[in-house]
Amino acid sequence: MRYLDTIKTPEDLRKLPLDKLPQLCDELRQFIIEQTAKHPGHLGSSLGVVELTVALHYVFNTPDDRLVWDVGHQAYAHKILTGRKEEFATNRCYGGISGFPRREESEYDAFGTGHSSTSISAVLGMAMAAKMEGNDKRNHIAVIGDGAIGGGMAFEAMNQASYRDVNMLLILNDNKISIDQSTGAMSKYLLSITTSPAYNRFKNRMWNLFTFKTNKSNKITNFFSKLGNGMKGYLLGGSNLFQGLGYRYFGPADGHDVISLVKTLRGLKKLPGLKLFHVLTVKGKGLEMAEQHQTAYHAPGKFNPDTGQIIQPDTEGMPPKYQDVFGHTILEIAREDEKVVGITPAMATGCSLTIMDEVFPERVFDVGIAEQHAVTFAAGLAAEGYIPFCNIYSSFLQRGYDQVIHDVALQKLPVIFCIDRAGLVGEDGATHQGAYDLAFLRAVPNLIIASPLNEHELRNMMMTAYHNAQQGGLPFVVRYPRGRGVLVDWRNEPQDLPIGKGRVLREGERVLVLSLGPLGNNVAKALDSLQAENIRPGHVDVRFLKPLDEELLRSLAAQYPVWLTVEDGTEKGGLFSAVAEFLEDNGLQNQLHHIAIPDRFIAQGDIPNIYREVGFDVESVMGKIRGIYD
Amino acid sequence: MRYLDTIKTPEDLRKLPLDKLPQLCDELRQFIIEQTAKHPGHLGSSLGVVELTVALHYVFNTPDDRLVWDVGHQAYAHKILTGRKEEFATNRCYGGISGFPRREESEYDAFGTGHSSTSISAVLGMAMAAKMEGNDKRNHIAVIGDGAIGGGMAFEAMNQASYRDVNMLLILNDNKISIDQSTGAMSKYLLSITTSPAYNRFKNRMWNLFTFKTNKSNKITNFFSKLGNGMKGYLLGGSNLFQGLGYRYFGPADGHDVISLVKTLRGLKKLPGLKLFHVLTVKGKGLEMAEQHQTAYHAPGKFNPDTGQIIQPDTEGMPPKYQDVFGHTILEIAREDEKVVGITPAMATGCSLTIMDEVFPERVFDVGIAEQHAVTFAAGLAAEGYIPFCNIYSSFLQRGYDQVIHDVALQKLPVIFCIDRAGLVGEDGATHQGAYDLAFLRAVPNLIIASPLNEHELRNMMMTAYHNAQQGGLPFVVRYPRGRGVLVDWRNEPQDLPIGKGRVLREGERVLVLSLGPLGNNVAKALDSLQAENIRPGHVDVRFLKPLDEELLRSLAAQYPVWLTVEDGTEKGGLFSAVAEFLEDNGLQNQLHHIAIPDRFIAQGDIPNIYREVGFDVESVMGKIRGIYD
Repeated sequence: MRYLDTIKTPEDLRKLPLDKLPQLCDELRQFIIEQTAKHPGHLGSSLGVVELTVALHYVFNTPDDRLVWDVGHQAYAHKILTGRKEEFATNRCYGGISGFPRREESEYDAFGTGHSSTSISAVLGMAMAAKMEGNDKRNHIAVIGDGAIGGGMAFEAMNQASYRDVNMLLILNDNKISIDQSTGAMSKYLLSITTSPAYNRFKNRMWNLFTFKTNKSNKITNFFSKLGNGMKGYLLGGSNLFQGLGYRYFGPADGHDVISLVKTLRGLKKLPGLKLFHVLTVKGKGLEMAEQHQTAYHAPGKFNPDTGQIIQPDTEGMPPKYQDVFGHTILEIAREDEKVVGITPAMATGCSLTIMDEVFPERVFDVGIAEQHAVTFAAGLAAEGYIPFCNIYSSFLQRGYDQVIHDVALQKLPVIFCIDRAGLVGEDGATHQGAYDLAFLRAVPNLIIASPLNEHELRNMMMTAYHNAQQGGLPFVVRYPRGRGVLVDWRNEPQDLPIGKGRVLREGERVLVLSLGPLGNNVAKALDSLQAENIRPGHVDVRFLKPLDEELLRSLAAQYPVWLTVEDGTEKGGLFSAVAEFLEDNGLQNQLHHIAIPDRFIAQGDIPNIYREVGFDVESVMGKIRGIYD
Repeated sequence: MRYLDTIKTPEDLRKLPLDKLPQLCDELRQFIIEQTAKHPGHLGSSLGVVELTVALHYVFNTPDDRLVWDVGHQAYAHKILTGRKEEFATNRCYGGISGFPRREESEYDAFGTGHSSTSISAVLGMAMAAKMEGNDKRNHIAVIGDGAIGGGMAFEAMNQASYRDVNMLLILNDNKISIDQSTGAMSKYLLSITTSPAYNRFKNRMWNLFTFKTNKSNKITNFFSKLGNGMKGYLLGGSNLFQGLGYRYFGPADGHDVISLVKTLRGLKKLPGLKLFHVLTVKGKGLEMAEQHQTAYHAPGKFNPDTGQIIQPDTEGMPPKYQDVFGHTILEIAREDEKVVGITPAMATGCSLTIMDEVFPERVFDVGIAEQHAVTFAAGLAAEGYIPFCNIYSSFLQRGYDQVIHDVALQKLPVIFCIDRAGLVGEDGATHQGAYDLAFLRAVPNLIIASPLNEHELRNMMMTAYHNAQQGGLPFVVRYPRGRGVLVDWRNEPQDLPIGKGRVLREGERVLVLSLGPLGNNVAKALDSLQAENIRPGHVDVRFLKPLDEELLRSLAAQYPVWLTVEDGTEKGGLFSAVAEFLEDNGLQNQLHHIAIPDRFIAQGDIPNIYREVGFDVESVMGKIRGIYD
């Protein structure tokens, strides 16, 4: 019998003897491997924190003690131990459980996460609440990775926290890698402290202490107190950045020694105030191939649970991913012009900027999890005559919105934003849907906003944006979705498009469909099928949300009394709104219908199911059009 | 004759002998005092950097060397020395020069600023451009305050910068105060190093060195090199946070000793790589009252240039500022309910949260310049049953957009956002116009968005938001402008409003004006005046942008065939769009016109002029309505 099967809640876990925890960890790890092999998810980071998760729930009184997982994709063991073992087979599936912590899913999920670097702010709020209520017993724990702690928001929170006397434990889960290799000063700093002899001497001392004296809590507390400031600084060999910020620093500790982790956490639990516990973990721990290829096994898709071998889907004859089209196209442009640079906030692999990085590493900048900085850094380069392609996922660009307005658009600096993961993304769910970029960017003056119908158009738009930047034009946004396009023969000779001009794809009668982006392919299929029913709408590929091709629209107003907009973005503020505004501004009486993401958050699931839910699939588009003709 | 009058560009400045600089600084300071006394602006911070500005332009080869002023409201001396002395009388005026650096205004303004913490990112982009071009001569300098360096974006940039071998000088302008007193770990840390005996010994050594050996540049360079790491750490007495991040740290230095500053900067200019120079300045330096009352003299309005006495405008009988109505009302609510807390990112005085802070300091959180953190910190408190009023200026909330979506709206946490400086703000200009919040917030599911017609309505909406939060309702946004309301007798008994319901203010004929927020008062005046012309539109105070009162609108559609929306926000995505969408969704054929902020950036100026420019003044509203009736 497995210990794992006896655990319905952390209460059950806490009944296990300490010496059984290593076995439980093995079972838990095996369970995650088996499940994630069948139901793809974030494997590597979840394997890395198995022992830490067990130790935290063993020592702390969750859910009363508050535990927040930064980013949250590493929370699989947490979910399994907190009553969701049976549902774990539905992880990231339509109608199943989320791949991230969600308050609505479990009382053990103290705060929902998904985007990086939020945990310290949230936990500080909770700790401050306890303080105001005079509750000095409750513990507040944020688990944050070495990549996420470099995000500006985490620093803002650490900065404020240290000013307030609160009961807060930050666990720095240091695996030396976020998704791609971590970059930046924080990363170098962490490496230096984990390899310094003085630190390691200290580590050994602390370890010995915990191993032999865990029951003598007063002594431990005294020892910790003495470590404050002077003595600690001495032991640590000089400078400690976290101490500079007012934190009591402990570690680095072996994140895969569950018994030691329990002992250390028991000690830390008794210490009031602000603490930072630095834990070293190995991403992919326990699955050899995942340990060796950490970026590939961040989210590997299906794999063989025994060997770890990734099961490559058969992509023979399939169209490429938009990501790879971006990667190859920026490389082509970069070969022609040494002023072209690529920027990514920690998503080089995900957005395929790696393709350019292999050839021109000195012109590719992975700035870390730092969207705000990424945008203004691009603006600084553009101010000096460089042509930056700044690739950011739609939902992460929400982090750089002020910088788009204040540093790029206001100054008319020709930064090219390639917005990846625009529209519905599927399994990553509500936190990652790229639903808002069309709306929030359309409100900004001076931006050109385009979305391609297919791979050829993506290449055309990137080339157009490049030439526009060369001539000192306005900042240019190209947004495209996650995943594969529609053209097997994708590598056209890119051509400049007229900025702000749409195109008629199909002439028709009565109804005009105005689509923006790849959803236009579903429209085309729907219109093909509807011909049999003698329903023949026209179809315009809008291409540019901004500036909108008002000349074209005016010319079609009389011919088509009824219009239907189709866009992979929210119904509040995007293409539908732009066309509605256009009709009003021009005193046109055309009826207007829309297909768009409804005004609610869309949970995780596979794209076919989600598309059906919101009416993006071919059948739904046909139904919508039929309804208009009725 | 003044030296100041001989300086048209920094070239002229560089011809002055070193020993004349103190006199020039006195003249410059006097000029700023005299001008700012008549033409109000950011006095305190500009007085604080007079010597630093002179020294920078004296030592560095601007504009070829790049100089970026973080926030930029301290750049008055910079503007005066770089060809804008004559125009300085038009500072912040309509049609005049901006109160912040602007690339379009001068080649010496290497990067436009306004919002905090952007300078390091921009300068890193420029420095990286130089590096790629093989230019190792050009210098790249960011001047950033001790408040601004606590902003997360600055940390992100410092983090990336240290990873790259670039030629960059950060000048930390440490005046211990941003607008209100700086808070947080960074602030405490800076205080500790500036008061540490070891640091001061080091400072004296460095000072002596520069005073006596400035011509022996090799020796200086050697000395600086030796300071790297080991010896420097020793001299600095152990831990240095900036060194932890990979920066060579120099200072702290007296920011008002211009000759020493010049000598130090000459030394730093010869050092390649990443340097941080910590300069101590006094906000308001040289005007005694400004030194003593630093928050009041941040932007004091008109004052007596000889005594410094602020010329209090006669406000007898005037309506209160919306800010003070907010401050008194949150205090009233906080008195009734200890779960109510107030949060501000460094704008306690500006938003009048100080009124609550005086009574309940333990429930008011000034989190520093940290909008991202402010929002998620509020979410953490709300998750624990607290009721946070998070007050953020509209243009600064652009920094917290992702957190509003991801941490508040998605989790339906009842945070109350009071959005101050919404709509056109006037003299602060393009960077500070609150033009986009209606559009970018309307796109977010689960938000309630309201804007009050007047002071009574602001109090009603705050009370409604409070009761809504008490009952676990959705997050609630109340947005209101900078400045005075319209009701002298403003202190009503606040009443709950029905959420999502507008109200008819006036019945009329043919045309219906739908206004959101205080611009409705201009509408009311316009409608009063138009009666004489027999023009009698109806008037609805929309109150809630979201949810929109569709029931009310439907009921008025037949009565009023022509509608006009009026809002103090962009025309792309706000009320106009919402009503246009409503009409289309309901198959209504009403004509729709709009008054809104046009889709371009609006520069600085007084509100009456700007209102005329965009058509918000009573005359323009009348003209618009007349045009509709024609």
